[in-house]
Order: sequence, then C-alpha cells, then structure tokens
Amino acid sequence: MAPEPQLPLNFGMLLFPGFQALDVFGPLDCLNILSQSHKMNLSIISQTRGSVSTEPPESTGLNVLQSFNQHVLATHSTDDDAPVDVLLIPGGLGLRAPEAELAPYVEYIKKVGPRCQYIITICTGAPLLAKSGVLDGKRATTNKAAWRFTAWGPKTDWIARARWVQDGNIWTAAGVSAGIDVTLAWIGTVYGEETATAVSNRMEYRRATDSTDDPFSALHDCQDVPAQ
Amino acid sequence: MAPEPQLPLNFGMLLFPGFQALDVFGPLDCLNILSQSHKMNLSIISQTRGSVSTEPPESTGLNVLQSFNQHVLATHSTDDDAPVDVLLIPGGLGLRAPEAELAPYVEYIKKVGPRCQYIITICTGAPLLAKSGVLDGKRATTNKAAWRFTAWGPKTDWIARARWVQDGNIWTAAGVSAGIDVTLAWIGTVYGEETATAVSNRMEYRRATDSTDDPFSALHDCQDVPAQ
Repeated sequence: MAPEPQLPLNFGMLLFPGFQALDVFGPLDCLNILSQSHKMNLSIISQTRGSVSTEPPESTGLNVLQSFNQHVLATHSTDDDAPVDVLLIPGGLGLRAPEAELAPYVEYIKKVGPRCQYIITICTGAPLLAKSGVLDGKRATTNKAAWRFTAWGPKTDWIARARWVQDGNIWTAAGVSAGIDVTLAWIGTVYGEETATAVSNRMEYRRATDSTDDPFSALHDCQDVPAQ
Repeated sequence: MAPEPQLPLNFGMLLFPGFQALDVFGPLDCLNILSQSHKMNLSIISQTRGSVSTEPPESTGLNVLQSFNQHVLATHSTDDDAPVDVLLIPGGLGLRAPEAELAPYVEYIKKVGPRCQYIITICTGAPLLAKSGVLDGKRATTNKAAWRFTAWGPKTDWIARARWVQDGNIWTAAGVSAGIDVTLAWIGTVYGEETATAVSNRMEYRRATDSTDDPFSALHDCQDVPAQ
C-alpha cells in the first residue's frame, strides 16, 4: 500500500521501565488492526533499544514483587531520531522514578513533541507531556486515581470529568483502559467514524463515544485544576 | 508476601507468532494489578524462548504489512515445563498458520491443560484449546467474526451469545477486548467481587458483568453450534 496523503505514516510509542501494559497495548492493538488497511510504521522508543519491563525500576520503591511482569522490545532509542508523526505516551508506576531517570523521556518529548502531527497520551502520560512543556496553555486530562500528578503541569487546564480531552492536535486520555477510547475517537476524527467503528467491532469493544462520560472522576472526587 | 492457600500461584501465558496484542495484554494487565496485592508468578511460554512478534508468520499469507508490530519476550519454551496453575491462551491471526506450525502449541496444551487449576482463553484461543481436546464435552465461546473456527472443536457446545462462558475450571471469552471481562469475572469468582471491582477501577474500566450481554454475535449472525 502506498502512503495516503494527509494521513499520518509514522507512529512512535514511548516506552519507559514500569509502563502500564494496557496503556500501551490498548492503543497499539487499535492501530494494529488499522494497519491492516492503511500503510503505517511503528517505532517503539525507549532510552535504549531492547527489552523494557513493565516492572517499575528499583528507584521507585514499588518493585516489591518481581515475579509478574512482561518485557517488550524497543526498536529505537530516544537518540535514534525515528520519524514520528503520531507520538503516543503511556503512563505507569515507572513515572514515580526520580527526576533524573525521567529526564531522557522529558527531553525526548521536548525535542519531538512540537513537530508531531498528533500526540496521544494515556493515563499519567499526560503529566509527563506536561513536564516537557508541550501541554502549556492546553486543556487535558489524566488518570483519576493519580490526579495529584496534574501538579506536573501548572500551565495546563486539567479537566476532571473526562474520558479523554482533545485540544487541537493533542489528545489526552484518563486512566489505563481509556487509552482504547481515545485512540478510537482519534481514529474516528482522522480516518472517519466508519473506520473507528470497524476497528472497534473487530476488537468486540463497545467504545465510549461521549468524552465527558466518566464515572471515575467522581469515584476519586477529582476537581478541575485550572492553569495558574 | 507468602503464597495464599487455594489461590493459584503460577500463571502461564501461551504466546505464538501473530498473537493478538490485546488478547494478551488485556488479561495480563488485570493480573499485573492483582499481582500488586497477591503473590503471583508469570511465565510467558512460546515454542522457543525470546522475542515473539504480533506479526503473523509468512505461512499465513497475512503478513503483507510488516512495518507495524510489537515484540514480546517469552520467558520459557514449551519444553521448559514452567509450573502453570492458570493457563491463558490468546487468539490471533497467527492461528491461520499451517497445522504443523501450530502443533507445538497443541501438544503443549494437551500436556499441560489437563493438570491446570484454571484455563482462560481469549478470542480464537478457544478453538486452539478445542483442537487439543481439552474442550471436549464442554461449553465454550470464541471470537464472533471468526465463528467458523468453532469447527476446530466438534465435541464442544459453542455458545454464540456470550461475552464469556465458564464451564467448570475453563473460562472462554469472545473476541479481543472480551479478554478483559473474562479475566475480571474470573478474578471475581476466585478472589472475590470486591477485588475484581478494585482491579477494574484501577484500570478505569467499566466491566461487563453479564456474560450473556453480547451484541457481536448478532452483528455476525452467529448461531450456537452443538457438539456432534
């Protein structure tokens, strides 16, 4: 298949140690299915190429149980400069690592984010995007159980009652499974609703189509956090 | 944490080339979260240890687009005899490979399946389980868009209108995303509803609690297939 004009070609998934598995594979499996009918490339990008674990690094103090995890291969390092039209940023307990360990990812987003055609974040991927400055002056949402991480983006308007938020070319989702809904909503906008429905049906998934229908903000008593 | 009496300790995810990513990572991320409060081990089992791709093998004729895929590390080979109390079997286009390529997986299930405490299949994982004989005389369901694969289990009662089916210690799910619902239902039964709800909330997922609520069987006009 030839690349289609206007449609994005190169997808990049950022992967840090301690990523949340469904944050990554919910969106990617929507895109796996989409890639059966559209020419698309995927780079999986981490600080170094090779195996990246779902297990949070020792520095987080959260890796007490080490015997249940998965390893996914990063195809590119953050220095490799893989072409990225659509950058996907997941969340996960790995983001509780010290600032210095997150720096390569923040620097990568600073460098690549502003030139992307689209950015999609899942869960606490939004605070990571905010830390890089790319969410300044934008509306966004994030995981409702980790709402305090909105502090990473003091110049962002954080919307509590949202399954996802679109602001221009940036789409931010709520926690974990919301990554599937935001990706299908994004597919609907970019490739058409018929395509989004076809992908959703292939996954036998009943997708959320109302971005404000979110019971989890109430569950965690989250309030909007306006930009300072 | 010490192992808990009665609760399963060792989980095994079977992984063949061309697995469907969400079939694997929907259930695994439910279990990742569960493993933060319970002692659990995970083995990822493939014909050989090492990297396994979501890309269907050449023999399926379905790998026309090779530039969008993910690689996951198998920790054990099917010969390694990793301890498995709960065996998870995903589906995927890789199951369209010739019989000879699937044989190692069928043989593995024949060997390990009958001694498992629980078996959970997702999508076309159920026909693979059926091919191994372990679904003989049981009720089961599978992916509704691939309903013809019920032919792999002529001695199984295939239930069309089902998000998942439980028959004794065997739980079979419908397509792709149904893997999340069957895993949460299984957690509810084995660990209690409160735990299932806690995991579901952590994923910000609205889980299906009615196993017969399935719009996709009607979409694909699937009918029950009784055992012959």
